[in-house]
Order: sequence, then structure tokens, then C-alpha cells
Amino acid sequence: MNNRVIIFDTTLRDGEQSPGASMNTQEKIRIARRLEELGVDVIEAGFPAASEGDFDAVRRIAASVERVQVAALCRASKADIDKAWNAIKEARHPRIHTFLATSDLHMKYKLQMDPDTVVAKAAEAVRYAKTFTDNVEFSAEDGSRSDKDFLCRVFAAVIEAGATTLNLPDTVGYAVPEEYAALIRYVLANTPGIDNVVLSVHCHNDLGLATANTLAALMAGARQAEVTINGIGERAGNTALEEVVMAINTRKNVFGLETGIDTTKIYPVSRTVREITGMIVQPNKAIVGANAFAHESGIHQDGVLKNPMTYEIMQPETVGLAKNNLVLGKHSGRAAIRARLEAMGYTLEPDEVNVIFTRFKALADKKKNIQDEDLEALVTESVLRANDIFEVGDVQISCGNTFHPMAGVTIRREGVLLGPVFTSGNGPIDAVFNAIMQLTGVCPELLRFTVSAITGGTDAQGEVTVRIREGETVALGRGADLDIVTASARAFVNGLNRLAAIQQNPARSTETI
Amino acid sequence: MNNRVIIFDTTLRDGEQSPGASMNTQEKIRIARRLEELGVDVIEAGFPAASEGDFDAVRRIAASVERVQVAALCRASKADIDKAWNAIKEARHPRIHTFLATSDLHMKYKLQMDPDTVVAKAAEAVRYAKTFTDNVEFSAEDGSRSDKDFLCRVFAAVIEAGATTLNLPDTVGYAVPEEYAALIRYVLANTPGIDNVVLSVHCHNDLGLATANTLAALMAGARQAEVTINGIGERAGNTALEEVVMAINTRKNVFGLETGIDTTKIYPVSRTVREITGMIVQPNKAIVGANAFAHESGIHQDGVLKNPMTYEIMQPETVGLAKNNLVLGKHSGRAAIRARLEAMGYTLEPDEVNVIFTRFKALADKKKNIQDEDLEALVTESVLRANDIFEVGDVQISCGNTFHPMAGVTIRREGVLLGPVFTSGNGPIDAVFNAIMQLTGVCPELLRFTVSAITGGTDAQGEVTVRIREGETVALGRGADLDIVTASARAFVNGLNRLAAIQQNPARSTETI
Repeated sequence: MNNRVIIFDTTLRDGEQSPGASMNTQEKIRIARRLEELGVDVIEAGFPAASEGDFDAVRRIAASVERVQVAALCRASKADIDKAWNAIKEARHPRIHTFLATSDLHMKYKLQMDPDTVVAKAAEAVRYAKTFTDNVEFSAEDGSRSDKDFLCRVFAAVIEAGATTLNLPDTVGYAVPEEYAALIRYVLANTPGIDNVVLSVHCHNDLGLATANTLAALMAGARQAEVTINGIGERAGNTALEEVVMAINTRKNVFGLETGIDTTKIYPVSRTVREITGMIVQPNKAIVGANAFAHESGIHQDGVLKNPMTYEIMQPETVGLAKNNLVLGKHSGRAAIRARLEAMGYTLEPDEVNVIFTRFKALADKKKNIQDEDLEALVTESVLRANDIFEVGDVQISCGNTFHPMAGVTIRREGVLLGPVFTSGNGPIDAVFNAIMQLTGVCPELLRFTVSAITGGTDAQGEVTVRIREGETVALGRGADLDIVTASARAFVNGLNRLAAIQQNPARSTETI
Repeated sequence: MNNRVIIFDTTLRDGEQSPGASMNTQEKIRIARRLEELGVDVIEAGFPAASEGDFDAVRRIAASVERVQVAALCRASKADIDKAWNAIKEARHPRIHTFLATSDLHMKYKLQMDPDTVVAKAAEAVRYAKTFTDNVEFSAEDGSRSDKDFLCRVFAAVIEAGATTLNLPDTVGYAVPEEYAALIRYVLANTPGIDNVVLSVHCHNDLGLATANTLAALMAGARQAEVTINGIGERAGNTALEEVVMAINTRKNVFGLETGIDTTKIYPVSRTVREITGMIVQPNKAIVGANAFAHESGIHQDGVLKNPMTYEIMQPETVGLAKNNLVLGKHSGRAAIRARLEAMGYTLEPDEVNVIFTRFKALADKKKNIQDEDLEALVTESVLRANDIFEVGDVQISCGNTFHPMAGVTIRREGVLLGPVFTSGNGPIDAVFNAIMQLTGVCPELLRFTVSAITGGTDAQGEVTVRIREGETVALGRGADLDIVTASARAFVNGLNRLAAIQQNPARSTETI
């Protein structure tokens, strides 16, 4: 059997379904390009039938990458498949990914279809998808809880209809490794024609077993792993790409498998996804957490000094954690900035570089060493913000524990200056948010507010993430600045802009695999 | 074989070894009491030989709990074992936990001992420990990378010397489930006398496999799991208690095992540990992450409405995520506050209740509904701060994007007023930190700065965590306030107090299992 595992990344589809992790199209394109550099084989770009916004995002991602396959998810219906195909047809390597539930529970309660109908509908969907492309994946939703013989029957039918990849997902995160591997082996042994297609797995981490289930399935003969960066995704998330890839690499003797991933890009991509989605990575997260390689910087380890192998099973450099030696500062010129941005994977228009250069200079006046993370924040702040309605104007705050907080704020609404208004609140940030709500007339509920320093040191930029809700719509806003209160104002206004964008692009229906 | 799994919690020992997760003694006692309520069987309270502070913490924890066993870690030397015993001898159910490395790599490079010496030394240590107590655990450090026959030989020797629990740890997080289970089976089959003792496992999450390895080992016959709350611990952390326990409970049919854990206390304990250690839990963390049960509050799920079992394998109430209906506000009296604190597990002195009540009233003037998390923050802020050198006085700030940030600050040093000084900085928080450094003369490096809202809504208290370093000493500081800048001042000053406390209690040597 071929030992090459196909890495199918669904950060942009299942990952984006994490509450609060929505991304705009430009951010998705940026992640897609990074994933291509990382060496994934397939990018699942979205679910085009979910909304016009999703359709457009998938279409634009499809046009932005070259080597990698671009998959679009669709239910097993002609309308969905048409939308999926229209969104990806410009891709060099398009893949239609259609799905239908196969567990008794889902067929009975969710689909309200009998098993024969499910088999017929699945095969029909695949046959229709094949009229557009040879590259068709079928997923048996809730596969791990499906009857094993019924699974074989559905799979045999879709293989006959032309499916080239079959996915057997653990949709609800219920599987345990040995049981899941046994199911994979059973399906491989009892499905006619399965030797000519790729069997795929897709796990969720509800019981903390997504990585182990994925690896067990690969050992049992699956050859595609559906994963996300940082393990983001619905509920407790999907299988983390970095864990599966590094387990395969670190324990080559056990697994005997390989992937096309350039592991030295793992950490940079992880950081980009964290920054764009606002989904925090805990310090004790395997591979990409801040402490994952902390034996050296943290507690002094006698053993590590005597022989690193005593405690270190992976080198930090392997996942791209090497120090970046190129330091930018106030004397760096435009060419140096552009070169650095390009090395970081940004291909920007000249006027975009100009905008960033101006903000870079202002930052360099206050902060001595500008690091990649700072530049990244400037790009996010300055360039990747299309179609914004509101813009932060002046922000002035007085506060402390001796008097009431005061804020004076102006806002631009499509270029028109609003304010200043002067308000108070429970704290300076509350006061600023009150002023912004008064000026814009939008009063969302604040669900989450987080701040982290982008780089170390007391002169670090603060990065603020807010999650806000108005009615049923939840939006994420981010802002960075040396001043945490100004960063909060930017984040809140960014959230309002996203809220407006989501509301203009009405309700997505969503499905999970 | 008995199906009851012994849950050995090492949050206070291996968990505390996470960079930045150090706790003071009162905080450790608080966690220990919560762990006892949760129903763990053994609490590893610390490593008494590491420092005087650790010794004292273990001694006081031992005296603070009743039903649970209290273990103290020690190297395989008389001096270490003496210290361990002296620290836990007041416990109702003491356990001495001694360890020695058994892998070729560790024996050769770290210990510089030949195998025969290791066997002799391990047995000698257990024999000596047995002179104090019948309850002795021996850990074969780096067990998963040890020669399997040598492991059996060491284990046979320590069983003969009287060990009642044998731990086979995956110290470096290198194991994969099937291989680890095979090793467990081999050791169980080939170690004379092992039927009369408990075999234990202790895994690290470097490859994301800690939970799967632990479960595989239990299936293979191990009957003690060494775990931590939220999976905190060195590098990528230890096995998460909540994942192992909920996997066992959710998949009873597969595992056929049981524990003594009251799962409805899992979420509250997770929150306490997060708050005390400052170790963030990512939203997509299994069981205890903010999104772990988010199908309901987040994306509308057609299937869940038709039948919750379509997507929900655990109910949020099972892990204690039920809503708290008792709301406290400005009209709540002292008795109500005391009752609520008691229900939350705090037994406080009358004067401590008075301090909290005063701060509660001040908070209730600004914030309508006071939740458990707010009360918890008040307790942390007001009561659990013994022997502090510095105290925050007045804090005044002006800032914004139109002028330089200004801060005016006073500090009390052992009661004596310092300042005010007036300073600037890159932002308001930087300005306040500059003022505090100027007043105290302590100028640590800021390694990490994080803020999160303690509860939802725009009137949430902000909780600031700072990690600071001076020389080789790293300390964590926390502060809460409605005003984020005041909260930052409190956190920084708290960090300075902890820095001073650690520096008075010099260098700990540390060991890992």
C-alpha cells in the first residue's frame, strides 16, 4: 500500500464554523496561500450554498492558489452541487465534496429518509458531480456511528457512481482509536471497488481523541486525513494538522507514513490562523503552544544540558520556531519593508505598501525593534479591511481608581465625521465602547473581550479581540495598537464593520461532517 | 480484574511546573480542597526537596484535606525521602512517591549509573520509604523509552522492597497508544508480584496523544491514571483529567471502567485552576473549552432541535456547566454573600468576609448582577494575598490617539506611601508600569500580558495576568477591576510581590517524570 497520506485542510470550512472564528474573504485568501506553501494537498475552501458570501469567498480562493486542490462542500442535491461547481470551476484542481448522513439516528431524525433512499441519493449526487469533474469526494456524515454493513453498501454505490475519495467521519467526536480502526479495516475489507479510491478520515476532538483516532485510522489503511490548523472547528474542534503531521514524522518507525508538509512552516501558519480567527492557542497546546518547547527557556533542565535527547523528542526549528534575526527599525526603508513582507508571504500593491510603510514609521518612532508579528498586525489593520463603513477617529481617555472614567471619541461613517461625544462607563474601555455605540447607533452585546501582547516586552503592541452579538449575528473584531484603549476602539469598530457585512449577507445554513 | 481506576491528580506538582503557572500556598490549598470535592483519589501536592516553599506548601496541603491521599514526590535518596515524609506525615492518608530513571539514555547521560546500580538504588529507596508508610509509589522515569525487560526487573525489585504502586510514565510524550499498551501488557505479564500492586500511567501531550495513551494503558490493565486539570504541565502538558474521565463515562461500553469523580464539579474546578495559574484554556479545548458545548448557543443546528443525540454525545450539565440561577446584587446582605461563598467552597474568617463584603458593595454599585466568577475574583484579590510588600495606591491615567499617555501613581511599600510620580509610556498600561517601576525600584521584563473579561457583558470585570522576569526568576501576577488599567496596575504589583516571595525562597531544583 502507498504510504503517502493526503492532507486535506478544512480550516477555512469546518474551522471557520467555530463560534466566533468567522473570517472575511481577504483573510481566507491569505490563509489559503499559506496552506499552499505549507504543502497541504487539498484545501476545503468553504460551503458555497451556505451564503452568497461563502460562494464568493470560495470562488476567489479557487482563483488565488495554483498547485493545491480546492474542495467545495455541498449537500447531496443538484442545487448545492451546482453552486459548489460554479464556485470552484476556475481552480486548477477542483474537487466537489458532497455528503449525506448514514447513521440510523441521522437518517431517521435529521434526514427523515429510509436507508434505500440514502443510498440512491448519495449515488445520484456523486454521478451528477462527476458530470463536472473527475475529482469527487463523498462523506458519510456521522459515519463512525453508522451500521458498518450499511456504510459498505453506501460506499460501494458511490464508488460505482464515480467517487474518488470516500470519507468516514467521526462527526460527533464519539469514536475511540481501536474501535475506529476496526471500522476502517472492516470497510476496506468489505466494500467492492474500494482498492481504487482513497479512504479518508475526519475526526472531532470532543473526548480529546481526534489525533489518536486519525492516526489509528491511517494505520488501518485510510490515506487522507481531514484536519485544521490549531485544531480549530466546531465544539472542541477538529483534528490538529500539526499533531498528526509531527506524530507521523517523529515516530516514523511506528507509522511508516509520509506527508507533503514542510514542517518548518507549521508555526508561522499556526500564528496566522490564530491572529486572523482570534481563536487563542493555549500555552500547553501540543506543537504550537507557547510552552510546547519550553524546556530550554523555562525551567533549567540538567538532563537537557547533558544530552538534549533526554527530554527533547522534537527540535523547535523543525516546526519553524527558529529565531528571526532580521530586525527592522526606524532607519529601515521602504524596500526593506517590502522585501520583508514578501518573505512573509504578502504580495501587496504599491499603494498598500505605502500605507503600511507610513504606519510602520509611526510605530518605529515608539517601538525600537519591529518584529514580523508587528508587521503582520499592521497588514491586518491597514490592508485587509475592505468595504469598512466605520473608521476610528480621535480617542481621548481619562481614568484611574480616583475618579470616573471619561472618553471623548470621534468616528467616520463612510468618510463623514461623527462626534465628538463625551461619555463615561465602568472603565475606560467601557466608556469608549459607550461613545462608539452612541455615535454609530449600533449597540451590540459584548460576548468576549481578550487582549494579548503581540510581541514580548513592555513596548509590545496590544492586540484586542472582541466578540459581539446583535440579535442572532455574532461578529469578531480585532485591533492592534501600542495603546490598549485605542486598540480596543479599533477592535470594537472592526467588529461593527463585520457585523454590518454579515447582516448584508444573510443567514447561512450550516452543516457539519 | 477490578475496574475502578484510581485518579491521581498532579496539578499541584507537574501542573505547577508549567512555565508561568506557579502558585502560592494558599492558592494550592484552595485547589487541593476543590480536588478533594471533585473526588480524586490521590493529590500529588509537590516536591518537598525542591525548596523550603514547596516543603511548606506540601505540609500545609497535607493538613488541609481529609479523605484524599496526599503524595509527595522525591528522588531516590534518603535526604529527599526524609523531606517528603516530614512534609506529609500529618496527612490522614500519606503516600511517598519516589522515582528513578530507567531508560538507557537517562541512566547513561543523566544519572551516569549502570543498570545494576539503578535497580539497587530504586529498591533501597522504596525500602527506606516503607519505614515511614505502607503507601509507597515508585516511578520509572522515562519508562516508555526503557528496555522492557529491564523495566520488569526494576519493578520486581521495588515490589519486593514493598512498593504498592508502580508508575510507568511517558515522560517525554513520545509514546503512541498501541505501542504503550503493548508495553503495559508486557510488564503485567512478566513482572513477578505485579498482581498485588497497582500499575499506574503518567503521560505527556507532546504529540497530542496523552489522553489516548492513558486510555490505551488502562484498557491494557493499568489502574491508576496520573492527570492534571486542564492538562496543564511541562511543555505541552500532562493528560487532562477531564478528558480521561469523560471518555470513560461517555464510552462505558468500550472501556468498562469507572472512577470516583463527581463529573458535575469538573467545570468549576477547571475554572479555578485557570484563574489561579493564569494558564488559558483555548475555546476548542475538549470538555472545558468555551466552545466545547457550543452547538446550542452558537450556530443553529437543525439536527439538535430534532434530536439532541444527533450531535450531542455529552450534556453540558454533566460537567457542571448548568446555569447558576442565584443572582447577587446591590441589595444582597452579608449573610447571602457568606452563604454563597460557602457554597462555592470557601471557608473564610469573619474579618475576611467583611473585607469581601465591602468590596462586593463597591462592585455592586457599578455592576448590576454579581456572578460567582466576580465573587471568586474578589476573594483572590482581597483574601488570598498574604505577606504582600507592595500595594497599589492611587492610579490616574490620560491617554488616546491624540496625545502622549500620562500616568500618575502612588504605591504603599509595607504601609509607607511612595509617590505620586507622573510618567509616560507607549500606552496607558506601559505608562502605569513605568510609574510602578520608578516607585518600587524593581524593573522586571514583561514576558506576557493577557486580559480577559471575567464574565460576559460590557460591565464585566477585566482580569489581567502578567508574567514578569527578573534575572532567572519568573513570576505571575493577576489583578481584576472594572477598569482595565487599574486591573493592570494590580496585576503588575501582585507580580512584584510574588517575585519578591520567590526570591526570598531560593532556587528550586526540578525534576520531571
